[in-house]
Amino acid sequence: MKCRKCNKKAVINMRQHKLALCQTHFLDWIPEQVQRCIEKYHMFSKQERLLVAVSGGKDSLSLWDILWRLGYQADGLYIGLGIDGGSHYSAQSQQYAEAFAAERGLNLNIVSIPETYGKTIPKIAESTLRGRAKPCSVCGIAKRHIMNRIAREGEYHVLVTGHNLDDEAAVLLGNTLNWIPGYLVRQWPVLEANRPGLVRKAKPLCRIYEREMAAYALLRGIEYVYDECPYSVGSTTLYYKEILNRLEADRPGAKLNFYLTFLDAKKKGLFSPQADPDLEQIHACPTCGQPTSAPGECVFCRMIKPG
Amino acid sequence: MKCRKCNKKAVINMRQHKLALCQTHFLDWIPEQVQRCIEKYHMFSKQERLLVAVSGGKDSLSLWDILWRLGYQADGLYIGLGIDGGSHYSAQSQQYAEAFAAERGLNLNIVSIPETYGKTIPKIAESTLRGRAKPCSVCGIAKRHIMNRIAREGEYHVLVTGHNLDDEAAVLLGNTLNWIPGYLVRQWPVLEANRPGLVRKAKPLCRIYEREMAAYALLRGIEYVYDECPYSVGSTTLYYKEILNRLEADRPGAKLNFYLTFLDAKKKGLFSPQADPDLEQIHACPTCGQPTSAPGECVFCRMIKPG
Repeated sequence: MKCRKCNKKAVINMRQHKLALCQTHFLDWIPEQVQRCIEKYHMFSKQERLLVAVSGGKDSLSLWDILWRLGYQADGLYIGLGIDGGSHYSAQSQQYAEAFAAERGLNLNIVSIPETYGKTIPKIAESTLRGRAKPCSVCGIAKRHIMNRIAREGEYHVLVTGHNLDDEAAVLLGNTLNWIPGYLVRQWPVLEANRPGLVRKAKPLCRIYEREMAAYALLRGIEYVYDECPYSVGSTTLYYKEILNRLEADRPGAKLNFYLTFLDAKKKGLFSPQADPDLEQIHACPTCGQPTSAPGECVFCRMIKPG
Repeated sequence: MKCRKCNKKAVINMRQHKLALCQTHFLDWIPEQVQRCIEKYHMFSKQERLLVAVSGGKDSLSLWDILWRLGYQADGLYIGLGIDGGSHYSAQSQQYAEAFAAERGLNLNIVSIPETYGKTIPKIAESTLRGRAKPCSVCGIAKRHIMNRIAREGEYHVLVTGHNLDDEAAVLLGNTLNWIPGYLVRQWPVLEANRPGLVRKAKPLCRIYEREMAAYALLRGIEYVYDECPYSVGSTTLYYKEILNRLEADRPGAKLNFYLTFLDAKKKGLFSPQADPDLEQIHACPTCGQPTSAPGECVFCRMIKPG
């Protein structure tokens, strides 16, 4: 297999694009695709300040690398979850994020959940809903809260996350197999800050396959945490990813087609504006001041209460 | 496993309903479910004349049996496709349909495509689009045309088809993996005759699993053609059915949930009325007089032209 651009030996063949590339041209191609995605969905400009949520994994660190190479003003945010799971998952992730930032002279915000709020994610889960709360739900709520808080406090214009195509397609499949109107109407590569107190969110990797991001990190020499979060084993997201991988194996491009035809149908007005959950009223949490969908204290503040 | 109603030995366990039943109670339960579905979606009344499209397979013959037992005025329509495929597929199917009707004293309309239009389905496919037309597309167009024609000529109120849950979920999955707005907006258990010249269509088996319909035919002693149409091998519908069967094996009820949450989301207004293809203009074919979406001769009339 030869590189389509220079005829040298290809390192990757992207069947869905009918495109094989050598290392040099692949490392150019990925940032070009990300730049096109940023422009296509009007995500942000080079004059705006970005906050990249970095987990220490391949997607978020590669995204930060790409945004930095493309000349964006991108700071990082690492959230320490206090998850050990035998592999020192959180400690390791933080080391990779810190080393990455230090090597490039980039600014990394760090929020440790146990240090700031007194409890690790697993401990918060144990003390929520009488121990019936799932760590992944608790973690999602905590991360969304902290990402929005730091973005507002640091006066960032946009919160940027490393969700890749596989992530977005898996979420879409879940929302489709269960037809959840609010989520279907809301899913988009960029979410405007259309409610008071919420910052704009963007996903510049949403059209790039997970395996391409892994190849990018590897070929770029980015060191990242290989382990998945120990709590992700058996998660529905991984289950939906497996289903999509089988579809993709049978029909290269199936995953991309699923996501892009969704975006296209949506843009052409498939969904009713009345089904938009943004029409819900928004309230400010009396404890933390952040936006919440129901009146009274927000879920995060209730979760982290002592006891 | 014991019958939930009488404690005798169960013949079927429906995991998605957490319901096991003996032969007697299962043979009662299926028509009850069909009756509930007819009422829930306002399909038709006992005062209306129904035309049941029968292929000679388990679903359509069982449906006809059920409607007859429930006291509906249901005639049959068998369409001879002229497909042999080594198993005398069409000839066999017709024999089963005729024997079924004769045993019960029911009225069966028969339209032979080769006798009426001069060519079998495979021959029409060969002479359409310079041989590039797929027999399954040609067959779909021909069946829709003839079903509507006979329903109008016989002054039937409703055309009833034997699509089961597996059929409907597979169609939905295909329309969802490719996000085809027109089809998504249109799919429903009953389609009103909301365009001039089109008859109402209803699918009373849409909430019943394929395996339950197979069990019904078997236990009721209905003789039907076992072979699938020789052209269905490798079809996308069978591919989507396989995917859904894997989902169902992992999570009993997944298939039903996928279809019912879709209906529910749609009923609650997920889709925009503007995406409705019924808003398209409708024309009358100058040759056959039946409705068609584009001006000029309809696809069916063009297909069956000599040459």
